Amino acid sequence: MVYLDYNATTPLEPEVLDAIHHALAEAWGNPSSSYEEGQKAKTIIAQARSHLAKMIGANPSDIVFTSGGTEGNNMILQTGLRYYENWRKSLTEAGDGDNMNHLPHFITSNMEHDSIKHVLEHFQETGQAEVTFIPASTKTGRVSVESVVEAIKPNTCMITIMSANNETGVIQPLDKISANVRLMKRGPRESKILMHTDAAQTLGKIPVDVFDLDVDYLTIVGHKFYGPRIGAVYVRDLGSGTLPLYPIFFGGGQERNFRSGTENTGMIAGLGKAAEIVCHNCRSHEIAMRNVRAYLEEKLKVTFGDSVVFNGKLEGSERIPNTCNVSFLGEGLEGYKILAKCQVLQASIGAACHAQNRPSPILLAIGVPVHIARNALRLSVGRYTTMSDIDRVVADLKQAVEHLQSP
Amino acid sequence: MVYLDYNATTPLEPEVLDAIHHALAEAWGNPSSSYEEGQKAKTIIAQARSHLAKMIGANPSDIVFTSGGTEGNNMILQTGLRYYENWRKSLTEAGDGDNMNHLPHFITSNMEHDSIKHVLEHFQETGQAEVTFIPASTKTGRVSVESVVEAIKPNTCMITIMSANNETGVIQPLDKISANVRLMKRGPRESKILMHTDAAQTLGKIPVDVFDLDVDYLTIVGHKFYGPRIGAVYVRDLGSGTLPLYPIFFGGGQERNFRSGTENTGMIAGLGKAAEIVCHNCRSHEIAMRNVRAYLEEKLKVTFGDSVVFNGKLEGSERIPNTCNVSFLGEGLEGYKILAKCQVLQASIGAACHAQNRPSPILLAIGVPVHIARNALRLSVGRYTTMSDIDRVVADLKQAVEHLQSP
Repeated sequence: MVYLDYNATTPLEPEVLDAIHHALAEAWGNPSSSYEEGQKAKTIIAQARSHLAKMIGANPSDIVFTSGGTEGNNMILQTGLRYYENWRKSLTEAGDGDNMNHLPHFITSNMEHDSIKHVLEHFQETGQAEVTFIPASTKTGRVSVESVVEAIKPNTCMITIMSANNETGVIQPLDKISANVRLMKRGPRESKILMHTDAAQTLGKIPVDVFDLDVDYLTIVGHKFYGPRIGAVYVRDLGSGTLPLYPIFFGGGQERNFRSGTENTGMIAGLGKAAEIVCHNCRSHEIAMRNVRAYLEEKLKVTFGDSVVFNGKLEGSERIPNTCNVSFLGEGLEGYKILAKCQVLQASIGAACHAQNRPSPILLAIGVPVHIARNALRLSVGRYTTMSDIDRVVADLKQAVEHLQSP
Repeated sequence: MVYLDYNATTPLEPEVLDAIHHALAEAWGNPSSSYEEGQKAKTIIAQARSHLAKMIGANPSDIVFTSGGTEGNNMILQTGLRYYENWRKSLTEAGDGDNMNHLPHFITSNMEHDSIKHVLEHFQETGQAEVTFIPASTKTGRVSVESVVEAIKPNTCMITIMSANNETGVIQPLDKISANVRLMKRGPRESKILMHTDAAQTLGKIPVDVFDLDVDYLTIVGHKFYGPRIGAVYVRDLGSGTLPLYPIFFGGGQERNFRSGTENTGMIAGLGKAAEIVCHNCRSHEIAMRNVRAYLEEKLKVTFGDSVVFNGKLEGSERIPNTCNVSFLGEGLEGYKILAKCQVLQASIGAACHAQNRPSPILLAIGVPVHIARNALRLSVGRYTTMSDIDRVVADLKQAVEHLQSP
């Protein structure tokens, strides 16, 4: 079998597995305990935090471990909500209540992961916030800087845009959006705008630096870069308290009270090791994946000619190096049907949490016509995918498509 | 070194380590993916769920995995809050709004873990709920059934009492409280009362059965029974929707929408294995720990005579079999000072998340005088602690105390 669904999840690097095993076996003490068993765990957690910080160009004190990307995204969006509430409260207390009837306003794209989309929808449905979902351009697969800037209102408190889309791989212009937002003059009754990105699909694939992206918050998801199923959030200058982070959980006060719950030392050790590997190898992994993806697309083109189209491969837009979203044109060639006929290829038609027999909402959102969207496959290669894996996959796809087309 | 802090955390059983390693290495696929890599993970998760259910006499569909006990407790208490809000809303919609000015009312004890205590305090501080903290009886170390029943009000929505205290080991009369609460007649404008217990300290030490305890909700914490640092919640008949569980996280809809976030297959496999071991061996572990604890207390008594008192060892109260809370009487024998002089013993003076140089708030809460409380150590033995470990610990304590008492 050839696995080409690395955007859904990745296997663990052997060194990550070892780090987890070692920490679980040797550093099982409670990190809050003062004796050696506990202190060993504490040291491992501190090392992991450093590696995570280094991976994104941050300070270790800016990192808070979470149970995963979903928790991280929920935590940051709830922070946006509370931040605005408290800011409003401070205005009221200062006797300056002009703006009081506005709900906090969030700006996001129409192609975010469910752990952004559904949180913001929940805020809307429960009357807690106003949300603008910016449609991605059908020409570029990106949200344009202008459309974000135009959507900003006096009550805008947070902008959250994914670093790269998980289905098309299109990299979003975070740095430009941030730069433009920072330049905007905000009135005395307008809250600061917090910038967040979910970096699930870029970490380990392209360089990610929080200062280049110029974001205040960033979500880290271990299992997308050969790490374990936990994550972390980055908050700019969290140590100095410039920006808020409101805890979701109350309890023992771990993670400086930002995230209560006995630390999952084993998983944290693995996450740190995965980040360390990214620090050392991101560039070479990026090149390897880009080459293999290029080979895949070339081979698909040679084999299927004009019967394949690549979704998200758009003039002027950059994609993360591992993602190829391809549609096979023709009746009866729905993505899920092709996958069902494949004997070698393991892939998906889109995000793993979505139904696998309907056209991807993401592709429809970026303007791919229904008859093409429903025939799409998301092929995402990994660090170690080889050209010969690709040969086998393309041959497999060829037999699957022929099978479906034969009368 | 001899570790006697098993109530803080436990090492992982070798079989648990193996289960985690195997799942991480072999079942790393996304459980939502339909190909083999994903389905392997899905199967492992289903098996783990069955073992957890069996451990507490529940149905697999009553179990929802969480990142740990803190998340579980937060989720259940928030469910209590939302449950009451929705019930009030339904009353209002039915035109029957008599009770509308009441906040939801929670009843708990004054010796809960921080992940209960601080959540409820937060509800109080933010005006979201009313909370009654029932003091434990100084005679029994337990909250009395009568005091709980007397505290019930028309707006009481949830009672949450720990199964056993983590510092004294005293088992709380959950079954009797539940039975009495169930017998109470509630008026048409009074919400049902949801019963919850945090079973962190009883699982793996004494038999825990949700029907015997007669609770609606129960929190499971893996790292207290030789499992990994994740957990689960039990909700009675969750499959049939009789009782609510409100998600904290929104996202990909995993765990039947109760807990979004890609499943942590490795940790879940480990939790399942730890539960399976409890199912097979709980009785023998219980006997082993009870014998070793008896030997420890006898040996302390023989060695220190009337200079030691056992906190929580109270007429008519039962303790979990592994916990010995002991105070060394005399000036300069504060628990933290004794621990600092120990060369063999690894233990604590109370919950790991608390400061280790002040008298335990739990002991003070059950009426232990300050001069005794500040001299207390919590010694909690494990499944495999031996009599010879105990000999070494008592000799170590002897030298530590003598050292502190020498002029």
